[in-house]
Amino acid sequence: MAFTEFRPLEEKSLIEYIKTVPALHSKLGNILDDVKVKEVGDGNLNFVYIIVGPDGSFVIKQALPYIRCIGESWPMTKERAYFEAVALREQARLSPEHVPEVYHFDRTMSLIGMRYLEPPHIILRKGLIAGIEYPLLAEHISEFMARTLYFTSLLHRSTAEHKRAVAEFCGNVELCRLTEQVVFSDPYKVSEYNRWTSPFLDLEAEAVRKDNILKLEVAELKSKFCERAQALIHGDLHTGSVMVTRESTQVIDPEFAFYGPMGFDIGAFLGNLILAFFAQDGHADQANDRKTYKEWILRTIEETWNLFRKKFIALWDEHKDGSGEAYLPAIYNNPELQQLVQEKFLDDLFHDTLGFGAAKMIRRIVGVAHVEDFESITDASRRADCELRALEVAKLLLKERRKFHAITEVISAIQKFQS
Amino acid sequence: MAFTEFRPLEEKSLIEYIKTVPALHSKLGNILDDVKVKEVGDGNLNFVYIIVGPDGSFVIKQALPYIRCIGESWPMTKERAYFEAVALREQARLSPEHVPEVYHFDRTMSLIGMRYLEPPHIILRKGLIAGIEYPLLAEHISEFMARTLYFTSLLHRSTAEHKRAVAEFCGNVELCRLTEQVVFSDPYKVSEYNRWTSPFLDLEAEAVRKDNILKLEVAELKSKFCERAQALIHGDLHTGSVMVTRESTQVIDPEFAFYGPMGFDIGAFLGNLILAFFAQDGHADQANDRKTYKEWILRTIEETWNLFRKKFIALWDEHKDGSGEAYLPAIYNNPELQQLVQEKFLDDLFHDTLGFGAAKMIRRIVGVAHVEDFESITDASRRADCELRALEVAKLLLKERRKFHAITEVISAIQKFQS
Repeated sequence: MAFTEFRPLEEKSLIEYIKTVPALHSKLGNILDDVKVKEVGDGNLNFVYIIVGPDGSFVIKQALPYIRCIGESWPMTKERAYFEAVALREQARLSPEHVPEVYHFDRTMSLIGMRYLEPPHIILRKGLIAGIEYPLLAEHISEFMARTLYFTSLLHRSTAEHKRAVAEFCGNVELCRLTEQVVFSDPYKVSEYNRWTSPFLDLEAEAVRKDNILKLEVAELKSKFCERAQALIHGDLHTGSVMVTRESTQVIDPEFAFYGPMGFDIGAFLGNLILAFFAQDGHADQANDRKTYKEWILRTIEETWNLFRKKFIALWDEHKDGSGEAYLPAIYNNPELQQLVQEKFLDDLFHDTLGFGAAKMIRRIVGVAHVEDFESITDASRRADCELRALEVAKLLLKERRKFHAITEVISAIQKFQS
Repeated sequence: MAFTEFRPLEEKSLIEYIKTVPALHSKLGNILDDVKVKEVGDGNLNFVYIIVGPDGSFVIKQALPYIRCIGESWPMTKERAYFEAVALREQARLSPEHVPEVYHFDRTMSLIGMRYLEPPHIILRKGLIAGIEYPLLAEHISEFMARTLYFTSLLHRSTAEHKRAVAEFCGNVELCRLTEQVVFSDPYKVSEYNRWTSPFLDLEAEAVRKDNILKLEVAELKSKFCERAQALIHGDLHTGSVMVTRESTQVIDPEFAFYGPMGFDIGAFLGNLILAFFAQDGHADQANDRKTYKEWILRTIEETWNLFRKKFIALWDEHKDGSGEAYLPAIYNNPELQQLVQEKFLDDLFHDTLGFGAAKMIRRIVGVAHVEDFESITDASRRADCELRALEVAKLLLKERRKFHAITEVISAIQKFQS
C-alpha cells in the first residue's frame, strides 16, 4: 500500500504505514507481528496513537484538517503538523533533555513519529490535580524556556537568520488566528463558544465583557502577540503540554509555534500554575487539605520565574560576544550597562509574562476551552468559588502588571485572594 | 538585443532596453529618435535616469548589487528593486496623489520605470535649505502616512493578509540590516564609517558612545524596529525621499520598505524637519535671518503630527466595522472605549515617533550619512553649533520621550535649544 496522498489513518492502516517507513519499524526492532496500537483519546486537536512492540515503541501523531474535539465543523489546516515538526526539532536541538525526539515526519500525511514518553510520565495538569509534587519541575521548565527563547531571539541570532525563520513561521497563521480568537477576543465579547460556571459566574462573565480598562490592556497584548516576532515560542505552553515524572519534564505539542513574544510562553506556564493553585481548594478533602501542596505550587511559580531569569541572563552573559545582533558587544561593552540592559529586558519581559499569563487564565474561566483543574470539581458552586478567585487575580495582574517588579509580589497578590 | 539576464545599463543600452518594453516606449509616443537621457547623479544607492521624448517622459531607476555612493566595496542586493516596486505600487494604490505611478518593473534587471516628477518638483530637503515654504506639505505628507500606515496594519487587515505580507517583506532583510547598522548601532560605537564636525563635536560624539541611558533606550528602539511588524513602512522617509512643489508632494524611494513600526516613518519625517530647523541659523544671512522660515518649519512639524493624528483616527472610525482584526467591533463597540483605545494607541505611537525620530537625527550628526542641511553650511564652527543644538534636542527626545504627550511640548523643547 502506498501513502502518496493524505488520508486519515486508523489502527490497521497505521500498521501498513509503519511497514513503509524504516525509521519507524526499526524502532520496533523490525518486528511488526506483535505490535500493540492504542489510540490516546484526550488530544484536543489531533489523533495520537501509541505503538508498542516487543522491542521498542513510539508515538504517531496525525493532524486532520479540522479540530478533533469539535469536529469537521471547525476546519483547521493539517499543515500545522509541519510547523509542529519543525518546532519540535528546533526545541529538541536546544533543550534535548526536555523535548521528545522526532523519529519521522511526513508532510503529505501530516504525521509525526516521535518518542513515546513511557509511564510513569503523565500530563502535568493531571499531576497537579492529583496533588503530586515535582521537585525538578521549576528547574527543568525554566531550562527549556530560557534555552528555546534565548537561542531563537535576536539576542543570539543574526538579522538574516531571524527574518528567514520569522517568514517561515508566518505560514502557521491559522493556528495564530485561533489563539487570537480564543485568548484575546472571544472572552471579551458575546460568543457562542464561551461558557462559564453558570449561574454563579454570570455577572462576572458580563463584567469581563464590560471592563473597558481590561479590554484596553488586552488590545495591547493582542497587538504584541500578532506583531512582535521576538523568539520561536511554543505558543501553547500550558500544563497540558508538559509530561512529567518526578525526574523528567518533557514539553510536547508545539503546533502553535511561531515567532512571537517570549512572555506568551512563560505566562502560559505560570498562569496555568496559578489556575492549579486556585483549583486546590476544590480538590481538598478530609484526608488532604492541600495546604502543603498549595505552598509547593507557589514555590514552583516563584522558582520557575527566578530560575528562568537566572538562566536567561547566564546564557546572555555567556554568549554576549556571539553572533546576536540585538546588543552588539562594541556598544554594550561595560558591565554596568550590560546589567542595566538586562534588568530592563527582564523587567519588560516580566510585565509581558504577567499580562499574557493573566489573559490565558481569564480565557480558561469564561472562554471556550476550560481546564480540567476546575472542570474536575464536580460541585458547581465550589468550582465557581475557586474560579472567581483566579479570575480576580488575573484581572489584577493584567491591569496592574507594570506595577509588579518581582515574582514575590505576585505570590503575595495570589495569597491575598486565596480562601 | 535581449535582456534576459541582469546587466547595468548606461545611456545607449538604456535606449535599446526601452525599445523592448511597450509600457515604456508608448509613454514617449513610441518615438525614440529624439529622446534625451539624463543621469541623475545624486542618488545614494541606485542609478537613476530621466528619459524625455517629444511626446512624454519617465524615469528609470536601476539597482546595482552594491551601494552606489560607496561603491562595490559595500555590496547590497539588487533585489531591493523588487521590494521598492511592490511598496511603490501598494503606496500608490493607497495614496495615489502622493506617490509616482510605476509603469514597468523588471525583476531580472532590478529596474523600475515610473513617472518623471517634472520641474518645478525638487527634493524637499533642497527646498528646506533654500528656505521655501510649502503650504500643503503637512496636509499631504500626513495624508500619505495616515493612509499607508493605517491600511497596511491589523487595524484594517486580517491576520491572514498581514502574515502573508510580513513574510514577503522579510525578504528585504539586507536593507533592514543596513538601517539597523547605520541608525541603531554605528553611532553608539567606534566605527570606521562614523564622522562628525571635528574637532568641534569630538567630545559630543564620544559622549554619545558613553551615554548608558541613551544606549539603553536605543536598544529598545532597535528591538522594536527588528521585531514589530506593525504596518508596511516606507523605511526611509526623510526629507530627501520627498519631492515637492507648492502644490504637490510626492514620496519616492521606498526600497527600505518592510513591515515595521509606524513610528519609524513618522519619526524619520519629523526628525528631519527638526534637523532642517536647526540648520537654518547656518543658512541665515543679512538678506534673510530665516526667523519667519524657522517658525514655518515648527508650524509644519506641529501640523504634520496633528493632521496625521486626526486623519488616522478618522480612518479608524470610518472602518471600525471593517475587516481589521486588531479591534473587533463586538469588543470595542462603545464610543467611550473606542476613544480610550485610540488615545492609548496614538500616545504609544507618539512615543515611538519621538524615539525613532531622535535616533534618525543623532545618526545624521555622528554617523556615516550626513544631511545636506548641515553639510551645506561651509563654516565648520557655525555648522557644529547648529548640529550641537540638534543633537541635544535629539538626546532629550529619545531619553525622555515617554514624558511628552502633545506635539506642542516637543515644539517648546526645540525652541528652548535654539540660539
